[in-house]
Amino acid sequence: MKVLVLGGCGFIGSHLVDALLGAGHIVRVYDREPERYRPPFKKVDYRFGDFSDTPRLAEALEGVDIVYHLISTTVPSTSNLDPVADVNGNLVNTLKLLQLMHQKSIHKIVYLSSGGTVYGIPDVVPMTENHPLRPICSYGVVKAAIENYLQMYSHLWGLQYVVLRASNPYGERQGHVGVQGVIATFMRKILAEEPIEIWGDGSIVRDFIYVGDLAALGVLAGETDASVVLNAGSGVGQSINQIVSLLSEVSGKQIQPVYKSGRGYDVPQVVLDIALATQTLGWKPSVGLAAGFELTWEWQSLTHQ
Amino acid sequence: MKVLVLGGCGFIGSHLVDALLGAGHIVRVYDREPERYRPPFKKVDYRFGDFSDTPRLAEALEGVDIVYHLISTTVPSTSNLDPVADVNGNLVNTLKLLQLMHQKSIHKIVYLSSGGTVYGIPDVVPMTENHPLRPICSYGVVKAAIENYLQMYSHLWGLQYVVLRASNPYGERQGHVGVQGVIATFMRKILAEEPIEIWGDGSIVRDFIYVGDLAALGVLAGETDASVVLNAGSGVGQSINQIVSLLSEVSGKQIQPVYKSGRGYDVPQVVLDIALATQTLGWKPSVGLAAGFELTWEWQSLTHQ
Repeated sequence: MKVLVLGGCGFIGSHLVDALLGAGHIVRVYDREPERYRPPFKKVDYRFGDFSDTPRLAEALEGVDIVYHLISTTVPSTSNLDPVADVNGNLVNTLKLLQLMHQKSIHKIVYLSSGGTVYGIPDVVPMTENHPLRPICSYGVVKAAIENYLQMYSHLWGLQYVVLRASNPYGERQGHVGVQGVIATFMRKILAEEPIEIWGDGSIVRDFIYVGDLAALGVLAGETDASVVLNAGSGVGQSINQIVSLLSEVSGKQIQPVYKSGRGYDVPQVVLDIALATQTLGWKPSVGLAAGFELTWEWQSLTHQ
Repeated sequence: MKVLVLGGCGFIGSHLVDALLGAGHIVRVYDREPERYRPPFKKVDYRFGDFSDTPRLAEALEGVDIVYHLISTTVPSTSNLDPVADVNGNLVNTLKLLQLMHQKSIHKIVYLSSGGTVYGIPDVVPMTENHPLRPICSYGVVKAAIENYLQMYSHLWGLQYVVLRASNPYGERQGHVGVQGVIATFMRKILAEEPIEIWGDGSIVRDFIYVGDLAALGVLAGETDASVVLNAGSGVGQSINQIVSLLSEVSGKQIQPVYKSGRGYDVPQVVLDIALATQTLGWKPSVGLAAGFELTWEWQSLTHQ
């Protein structure tokens, strides 16, 4: 298949590109800039442009069978500062993308949604995909609205979609200069011998998934005929304090975190029930937290030099 | 209380203004143009402007305790023609409204959502408010996104909101030139001795509520301290063919409808479970279909001359 990965030079995108190439697909990437940590692949067709650049996006869509949409112009922690910009940058541009796909008779999309934000504060954990959606950040509201448009176009146009509600992915090539990716940020702090800062008391629980497992799920999502919304996590919750302990083991360093006051948009716990992904696509995460942390630590140590 | 009714010169808005005045509130209205069928009330403070006109809207919000948001720049049947315009006209402008309310410390909003579109094709009828949201028109996707932003700001800012998911309101002063309002359209056709056109075979089921009952619910929604999403219908389903029979009785005329092919965005049936509104606000619809049709027919007959 000829696949287009929107955001294919980013952290998750780069792993997805690896996995898609491994599965024998012809891969085109659309992103704003090249990968930060690796040279370009000769066999990947890179196209550079902004998500809002409709003519370039239209060119990049030419001849494509499947679109992987991994672009987000915002992150959860900053999306509430300007919800209008969030709506314009993500929802409106995704609607334009869907119109282009319809015009070009591209019938399949895999969309990276957010299991960490669309549900909001859980009634129960782990959460299935039927848990009510009550996002408490604009990032999550917009992702939920995009999910709704996908199912609407599935109904109206026969668009085939797989929504992957990812939990917290971590792994090699996750940036540490931004505001997302607690594992990358913590590792970088340890390597720089700077204190680790924790918002709140460290009891916040998250579901961390190794990015390679998420990429493998992405490949399977491209192969199914089902239109479906799937949780994409490990199915296991870890508190931030547990993460710090494990990081201490992996790095062999004592860690004394600095605790700061909590953030209003942080959901107290997120653990995703991943039974539906297993049942629908035969997928299960294969890299446990300890092994994943080793891989990530090794990469972070190398790039730190 | 000092209340602002956005869209207060429209069909539902005009009835809500009546009910709010009746309950002793000080009423300001913001709309694009005056009421079509009645002269202005001396005691209502009318302000005219577009929903996108932020400076005028900001002025209209001055000193207000409760905002009733009834504005929609689209209708279900046309919203899919240009979802980007739908998002810009409704979602983005509502976000700007909420920002203005926050700046002015206005903590309460009653929002008119759509029980006929946010749920999409029902798994069961009647539907409670917990039924999954799978809208199949942009109008419904945008309403659902606005609901999500309301609950988000309730969480973050303490905004108090009541969402009324209205079914199909009908009654006096419902326009007949537009594309919404099957009862008004049918009555007008009967009076003009033109054929009634039905999309599909007439088996589509809707939940019709007399607009005065919806307005009464609106008043109660302004008085509660709860933040809640409520279905606002009659709780009873009627097929379009049943409606035609009843119209035949009320008008005393034989009706031979013309059946046309169905429309993709039409949900086969909508019946709302209204137990939560009864339980939360002690509200029940009081005007049955026969009585409501009489009132509406009388008004339509008078204005037809």
